[in-house]
Amino acid sequence: MAGSSFGSLFQVTNFGESHGPAIGCVIDGCPPGLALSEADIQPELDRRRPGTSRHVTQRNEPDQVRILSGVYEGLTTGTPICLLIENTDQRSKDYGNLLDTFRPGHADYSYWRKYGLRDPRGGGRSSARLTAPMVAAGAVARKWLREHHGTQFRGCMTQLGPVAIAFEGWEHVHHNPFFAANTSQIAELEAYMDQLRRDGDSIGARIRVEATGVPVGLGEPLFDKLDADIAYALMGINAVKGVEIGAGFGCVTQRGSEHGDALTPEGFASNNAGGVLGGISTGQDLVAEIAIKPTSSIRVPKPSIDRAGQPNAVETFGRHDPCVGIRATPIAEAMLALVVMDHVLRHRAQCGDVQLDQPPIPGARA
Amino acid sequence: MAGSSFGSLFQVTNFGESHGPAIGCVIDGCPPGLALSEADIQPELDRRRPGTSRHVTQRNEPDQVRILSGVYEGLTTGTPICLLIENTDQRSKDYGNLLDTFRPGHADYSYWRKYGLRDPRGGGRSSARLTAPMVAAGAVARKWLREHHGTQFRGCMTQLGPVAIAFEGWEHVHHNPFFAANTSQIAELEAYMDQLRRDGDSIGARIRVEATGVPVGLGEPLFDKLDADIAYALMGINAVKGVEIGAGFGCVTQRGSEHGDALTPEGFASNNAGGVLGGISTGQDLVAEIAIKPTSSIRVPKPSIDRAGQPNAVETFGRHDPCVGIRATPIAEAMLALVVMDHVLRHRAQCGDVQLDQPPIPGARA
Amino acid sequence: MAGSSFGSLFQVTNFGESHGPAIGCVIDGCPPGLALSEADIQPELDRRRPGTSRHVTQRNEPDQVRILSGVYEGLTTGTPICLLIENTDQRSKDYGNLLDTFRPGHADYSYWRKYGLRDPRGGGRSSARLTAPMVAAGAVARKWLREHHGTQFRGCMTQLGPVAIAFEGWEHVHHNPFFAANTSQIAELEAYMDQLRRDGDSIGARIRVEATGVPVGLGEPLFDKLDADIAYALMGINAVKGVEIGAGFGCVTQRGSEHGDALTPEGFASNNAGGVLGGISTGQDLVAEIAIKPTSSIRVPKPSIDRAGQPNAVETFGRHDPCVGIRATPIAEAMLALVVMDHVLRHRAQCGDVQLDQPPIPGARA
Amino acid sequence: MAGSSFGSLFQVTNFGESHGPAIGCVIDGCPPGLALSEADIQPELDRRRPGTSRHVTQRNEPDQVRILSGVYEGLTTGTPICLLIENTDQRSKDYGNLLDTFRPGHADYSYWRKYGLRDPRGGGRSSARLTAPMVAAGAVARKWLREHHGTQFRGCMTQLGPVAIAFEGWEHVHHNPFFAANTSQIAELEAYMDQLRRDGDSIGARIRVEATGVPVGLGEPLFDKLDADIAYALMGINAVKGVEIGAGFGCVTQRGSEHGDALTPEGFASNNAGGVLGGISTGQDLVAEIAIKPTSSIRVPKPSIDRAGQPNAVETFGRHDPCVGIRATPIAEAMLALVVMDHVLRHRAQCGDVQLDQPPIPGARA
Repeated sequence: MAGSSFGSLFQVTNFGESHGPAIGCVIDGCPPGLALSEADIQPELDRRRPGTSRHVTQRNEPDQVRILSGVYEGLTTGTPICLLIENTDQRSKDYGNLLDTFRPGHADYSYWRKYGLRDPRGGGRSSARLTAPMVAAGAVARKWLREHHGTQFRGCMTQLGPVAIAFEGWEHVHHNPFFAANTSQIAELEAYMDQLRRDGDSIGARIRVEATGVPVGLGEPLFDKLDADIAYALMGINAVKGVEIGAGFGCVTQRGSEHGDALTPEGFASNNAGGVLGGISTGQDLVAEIAIKPTSSIRVPKPSIDRAGQPNAVETFGRHDPCVGIRATPIAEAMLALVVMDHVLRHRAQCGDVQLDQPPIPGARA
Repeated sequence: MAGSSFGSLFQVTNFGESHGPAIGCVIDGCPPGLALSEADIQPELDRRRPGTSRHVTQRNEPDQVRILSGVYEGLTTGTPICLLIENTDQRSKDYGNLLDTFRPGHADYSYWRKYGLRDPRGGGRSSARLTAPMVAAGAVARKWLREHHGTQFRGCMTQLGPVAIAFEGWEHVHHNPFFAANTSQIAELEAYMDQLRRDGDSIGARIRVEATGVPVGLGEPLFDKLDADIAYALMGINAVKGVEIGAGFGCVTQRGSEHGDALTPEGFASNNAGGVLGGISTGQDLVAEIAIKPTSSIRVPKPSIDRAGQPNAVETFGRHDPCVGIRATPIAEAMLALVVMDHVLRHRAQCGDVQLDQPPIPGARA
Repeated sequence: MAGSSFGSLFQVTNFGESHGPAIGCVIDGCPPGLALSEADIQPELDRRRPGTSRHVTQRNEPDQVRILSGVYEGLTTGTPICLLIENTDQRSKDYGNLLDTFRPGHADYSYWRKYGLRDPRGGGRSSARLTAPMVAAGAVARKWLREHHGTQFRGCMTQLGPVAIAFEGWEHVHHNPFFAANTSQIAELEAYMDQLRRDGDSIGARIRVEATGVPVGLGEPLFDKLDADIAYALMGINAVKGVEIGAGFGCVTQRGSEHGDALTPEGFASNNAGGVLGGISTGQDLVAEIAIKPTSSIRVPKPSIDRAGQPNAVETFGRHDPCVGIRATPIAEAMLALVVMDHVLRHRAQCGDVQLDQPPIPGARA
Repeated sequence: MAGSSFGSLFQVTNFGESHGPAIGCVIDGCPPGLALSEADIQPELDRRRPGTSRHVTQRNEPDQVRILSGVYEGLTTGTPICLLIENTDQRSKDYGNLLDTFRPGHADYSYWRKYGLRDPRGGGRSSARLTAPMVAAGAVARKWLREHHGTQFRGCMTQLGPVAIAFEGWEHVHHNPFFAANTSQIAELEAYMDQLRRDGDSIGARIRVEATGVPVGLGEPLFDKLDADIAYALMGINAVKGVEIGAGFGCVTQRGSEHGDALTPEGFASNNAGGVLGGISTGQDLVAEIAIKPTSSIRVPKPSIDRAGQPNAVETFGRHDPCVGIRATPIAEAMLALVVMDHVLRHRAQCGDVQLDQPPIPGARA
């Protein structure tokens, strides 16, 4: 209820702070019998890890995950899986006068107002570092979904500040530090980021995330619609300010005759729906896009106030991502996987395995 | 878990189908002592009601609400409040061959795949009619929030298909059938809708919704962020395909030096955050926008398939909204109210009333 | 969260007060495709109904149930099922000075302290009348469980005040007003009750409830153990003060060599466990017993205080059950059914249908 | 949903297995500002710790707790508190042929049937070792409740097998290994246990647990009654087979004129209710008793079957508690504290702090 748990049947409880001894999560509800070791999780963590290029924070964290429970002789037992990641590179003194003042656009202020006190070390609980356990939990969900339903997740950056990033192919995403789905714009993106860093400023980004091989029938009809839960999951990622499904905001100017995806014996003729109709998956690819705001930890000075309400200048030093969007792709994939995983379990609770396994309408899984 | 309940502490369980005997909801967790009668709820239902102008469905429903429980001598008792709305104008035969085929862009298909059967009368459970109980529950939350915290909710249409709607003032919203915040474009909007109806087509829309007088400190830090829950609530409204908070997708091209809202002794200097930092309310106005797709029930024929997977033409007759966005404003307001209400109760569970009541930083509630 | 919902996946939300316009419940999560009509539910309600013998309250309620949603053409659709029971025989004036004073042993006092106000008509929300919707919801669960797993529920009274009731056979239970499993003691029980009524007093009782044909593997290992959830469900019934599973309090004096139920190729050799080991069902019969206190609404005067804390005499008139235990058997059966139903859905969410369907160890289902 | 989380607002998620690397829990929802360190938790763990007398298991675990998150500069921050206890003394080979056979009365069988596989090391997840994190979480709740409401928890053994233990005074409980509230019977209890150990057998016990200084108004009226949640919490403790509140099973033979606790200007005249009326606390002491079965890990041989359903003899060696009831007192106290803590937060969510803080009816808090 205090918001550290995600999901209802595949429930992930996240704990830790940026500069505490450790961060991690407990997964409760994982089906038994899944082959699982740290080697299944570590690669996803490595994709999100800081310090992998000059365009992200230089904090040097190995983000080594350890499974503390729930696995016996290489298989999940059905009992809770605790994943632990120790914090090794905390430099608490980097934070200037943040104890007394509030970064504009940062959770410094709202945490302090909510709780009456806060852990200022590296943003404490509000740090994007807490997405690491999400990525770890997502890796478990991804493995199970891949093995049981052939569901896969992928994402890419589609815009970096003013630079729209053309889509050339998913195969490019893993060969550049931006998760860009092309090769032609990498130099442009690097130049943009280098200048930004010199300016001491930060920038927004736009990320696309997809699921393929999605079982039909996932999602609840009224409130826990699959798209509503995707919006919840993605908007919950640090710095996200907008979420679109399928045609998204583009649907505002569409007519019904254009928007509705025609059904044909060979499958859907288009995917304006983004894979969801009436909150329930159709078997088409799930498609979502998110807007990520520029980080608030910048060197450019900005007016603020201190805890007594007096004017103050914020000094942000230390190691920060000039574009938090760059590392957001694996996080968004993980959150989408957690949503799908939870809904698969929810679906089979009420409807059994029947619907998930039945042959779709011929060709309908486009 | 089957998705008919919204909220955790102010929990609203919705039931009914478009053409069943009745629709309604049960509110569990309403604080005791709130003066409440049908007269507090009916006006909000009337704003959402069908048949109020020629631009919405001509179904003639009085949407008369009845309180069945939870109120004694005009005050809520703390026990569940059941709100019942009887369906009076069901014309089940209007639905052509919908039993055998699927409207492109409609939940017909996904419901059938999820459950193996469906109630086709008027869209059954997937009908926008089920937003009426949400509006009714929202009215209860709005009254409590207004009385206890001065929180108010308002919304307007900001775009109807290709027509951007200029904001002139909130006072205009209630004097035209579109919830437009101006007087100068009403004729243009009416002409657009009249032509659309003649075309037998439908169109998308964009709605803005706000809360003012929001207590500081609402929202949970990690997963149940206030903005994540707003995204969940708004994306869960029928036909919504996109949600933005504050600067929304506009933040993609913003630099950090521009995006972060400066804090001054007189309050925040801007509201790119939309009232939320780190998932927690700052006391500024909550601001969200949503994209609503064109309805799938149109006269323009579109290719589809029948339940055997064979090609089929869809015939949609009957009474439909050519722009479901027109009636979406009171619904979005209600859902935002339910989110805020739930988070007020959650906040005081963990933190007590202290934070909510303490004097804000001088001027900080801009 | 305010406690009007039972279950997580087969979730029953109960509403209403004893003398309000109606009582009822919403079942969310019922699997689709179950044949269901009022005729499946009414017989269970009739078993619990007041006014069926001179030994229970003479309130004359038909308890006619109406299905308002979730069923289409005789089958559940997977959407919420609203069951409504109108109150027809409310005599609010029967309640003497209860508005100002508190019946010893009654919820009058605690409700008033919790909420600061209360609905005194017939006990309001604390009335045993609210068990009617539980019985109705239980009937739905019972039908699904019987059809899908052959699970059945039964119960009987095993003690009425000082009178221990010998068990002769389940077939007797439905042929006397006490749910006694014999024929030889009915006259004794009637005589006891007649004298009690003349005394204007009330008495406790002990009820046994069982489930047969229980799938193996139900229950969560740590906190939502099947027996813990049974204890929660049964202790939650009005007036229950004790719950035992299997050997119950008798195990205090048992040695391990006696208590542990030996496993043999033909099945378990005994059932001290009451069908649950480590919180998980073994496939044996679930067996529980409950203690029900004497009702607090008696004619015998008792000292109390009024709302100002001043001494006062309580006058209870009106129609009351001198032994609420008499009508408790169908309620306890219903609650046990709701627990089993919920755990079947929970089990198949995590583990799929596999375990439930697999052939048990030869003979193990004793 | 998979049952590893306890509570709704003060939510404790438990993880780990008896012989895995570590056990622990995550507390989500703890109010901010509570002074907390390991020193507040360790003493409660030490009370439950194995190896403290010759009458309990000789496993030598220091049960050293470490706070991994949620505390900053000695105060809880409102974010999740992870408590970690490393397992140091695992002797996995002590377990004879348990991999292939099932101890009568043990969860070996039901786990294997539920999940299709199990961790047999020391009982895996079903081990009573998993109560250590419950005791640790309970210590946090106890500190907060003591500081904010003066609520305190205490318990004692009231029966050890055939030996009824007379109550002389709470001050004796901490001066003998049995949590007996007297000094006169300790020798008798020691002699009984020594003989039992020589027999290679085990025995049941009966435990009483109480809370004093309980706020009035805790508990939800219908399903999450305070006594129902206490029954759930206590029945969920390993080996518990029965739970009573107040008069418990004794109420079966009570008349209403005897059972109902008279209210006087000086407070309640008796406590048959055990502190709960209509599911809501009255401010009187909460009083519950539990029955604990004899452990199934005994040296006395007993018939069983192996995984193929063939007859087999169970050999249990290793270190076991001959009476698990001996260490159950601090566990029961902890679970009662977790229930009360959760309901305090739930109460103030719906009703605010008002009711909890208001002056009780003069003398009513007896």
